[in-house]
Amino acid sequence: MSTSLRELLSAVTTLTDVDSRSTPGFEGGKAEAKKAMAALGNELAELQRRLYANGTGGDPRSVLLVLQGMDTSGKGGVIRHAVGLVDPLGLRITSFKKPTTEELEHDFLWRIEKGLPQPGIIGVFDRSHYEDVLISRVRELATPEEIERRYGAINDFEQAYFDGGGTIVKCMLHINSGDQKERLAARLEDPAKYWKYNPADLDERARWDDYQKAYELAIERCSTATAPWFVVPSGRKWYRNLAVATLLLEHLRALDLAWPAADFDVEVEKARLAAS
Amino acid sequence: MSTSLRELLSAVTTLTDVDSRSTPGFEGGKAEAKKAMAALGNELAELQRRLYANGTGGDPRSVLLVLQGMDTSGKGGVIRHAVGLVDPLGLRITSFKKPTTEELEHDFLWRIEKGLPQPGIIGVFDRSHYEDVLISRVRELATPEEIERRYGAINDFEQAYFDGGGTIVKCMLHINSGDQKERLAARLEDPAKYWKYNPADLDERARWDDYQKAYELAIERCSTATAPWFVVPSGRKWYRNLAVATLLLEHLRALDLAWPAADFDVEVEKARLAAS
Repeated sequence: MSTSLRELLSAVTTLTDVDSRSTPGFEGGKAEAKKAMAALGNELAELQRRLYANGTGGDPRSVLLVLQGMDTSGKGGVIRHAVGLVDPLGLRITSFKKPTTEELEHDFLWRIEKGLPQPGIIGVFDRSHYEDVLISRVRELATPEEIERRYGAINDFEQAYFDGGGTIVKCMLHINSGDQKERLAARLEDPAKYWKYNPADLDERARWDDYQKAYELAIERCSTATAPWFVVPSGRKWYRNLAVATLLLEHLRALDLAWPAADFDVEVEKARLAAS
Repeated sequence: MSTSLRELLSAVTTLTDVDSRSTPGFEGGKAEAKKAMAALGNELAELQRRLYANGTGGDPRSVLLVLQGMDTSGKGGVIRHAVGLVDPLGLRITSFKKPTTEELEHDFLWRIEKGLPQPGIIGVFDRSHYEDVLISRVRELATPEEIERRYGAINDFEQAYFDGGGTIVKCMLHINSGDQKERLAARLEDPAKYWKYNPADLDERARWDDYQKAYELAIERCSTATAPWFVVPSGRKWYRNLAVATLLLEHLRALDLAWPAADFDVEVEKARLAAS
């Protein structure tokens, strides 16, 4: 996998230009991707441990992985296969469902803020505050003025998280309408997948083009220098998982994480321990 | 690994009778344990997915793994190697540190209750409400009457969780004083482990026997039919990880988890999808 996937996947502006089955930055197929995944797993796990170790010592840094995408795009698969490469103790995963009555009484960012990772932690948002400019736009759950306000509020919010030591990795898992049809059909063929299917999914599917437009707007309005969007072609699951793992790895590498130094006298402690 | 590890490890009353390097129910060594771990990983992951799937459909059941043990006993290692076998989306891990000022203003179970897993989730407590009858007893952070009250309060609390559909798996990771000395020494030899070392650890270590007595009392008073304690010999890390994974597996098997049935007409949905 190319080491500059960050650059490769952040240049997108028009979703329809992106082939969902393309594999930017990666030459091989499924078998090679499996090997590449195993190869990067150790480094990813090691850097996560360093991030965690530093967090326990007062380093404010944390990482937030935001996963967005149409139904069946594979947010759950990414969590299992890419995020699952690191120690679960250092993870905090938050799934954002339809807002509760209490959540609706607050600003849309209220519940999001509560989900931000503590220092040393890799937070994962399975859906996110972007739903408030995606489904809210398509379904007209808020006025156009309010949606407009939200783009700015999101940028401010993400900037504040960044300023506090946060690294944001926003991934839009891109599939096309045909990919989704295939995957929904698979759910209807397999009793072990019925639970993932909801008849209302087809109502959302009927608004495919509106959702694509809403995604394009969100990507355009909320791709900032500190928190760009990455559009991850997700028609091939093995590429999608490898790409997100690679993006995480690239961002962790950029943090230049060393093990924290001892805040005690090592020799003194060795002597104390020996005498214990 | 024996399929009745639940019976084998729950019969303990005196910790000093337990050889920390014993491997009850398992004949092999490290290499065999690694194979056994890989073999049970798939079933564990599959049963967790079924638990999760049922949780999304209204099934109230959840699982709570409680991890207790002296410093270096390997709570973190168990989370990484045993708990890490399942999809992180279905996990909720809570590490209980020294209580905050706000937490101290409430009953000791207040923060514990907030950490209980939602339906379908496997919750993991890295330390737990048992600290309130362990360090609190040894360090006299509460009166003897209050400690006495807590055993009963814990049993009531755990019974209520059980009655609501919870399965509790309480593991005491048992090491001896020599094991701990060796592991603390290893932390002082490796700069990548300095962050895990705290000079105050040796002050707790000086009270080893008091802690063992407090553990024995907690195990005796809070081993109930619905929530027995399991004492896991943890002098050998590979056995410890395999034993906790096996205990989790045995408890998940006992839930007899099927995939949830479709709550829609599959043929109707196939036709709708085809037309979409």
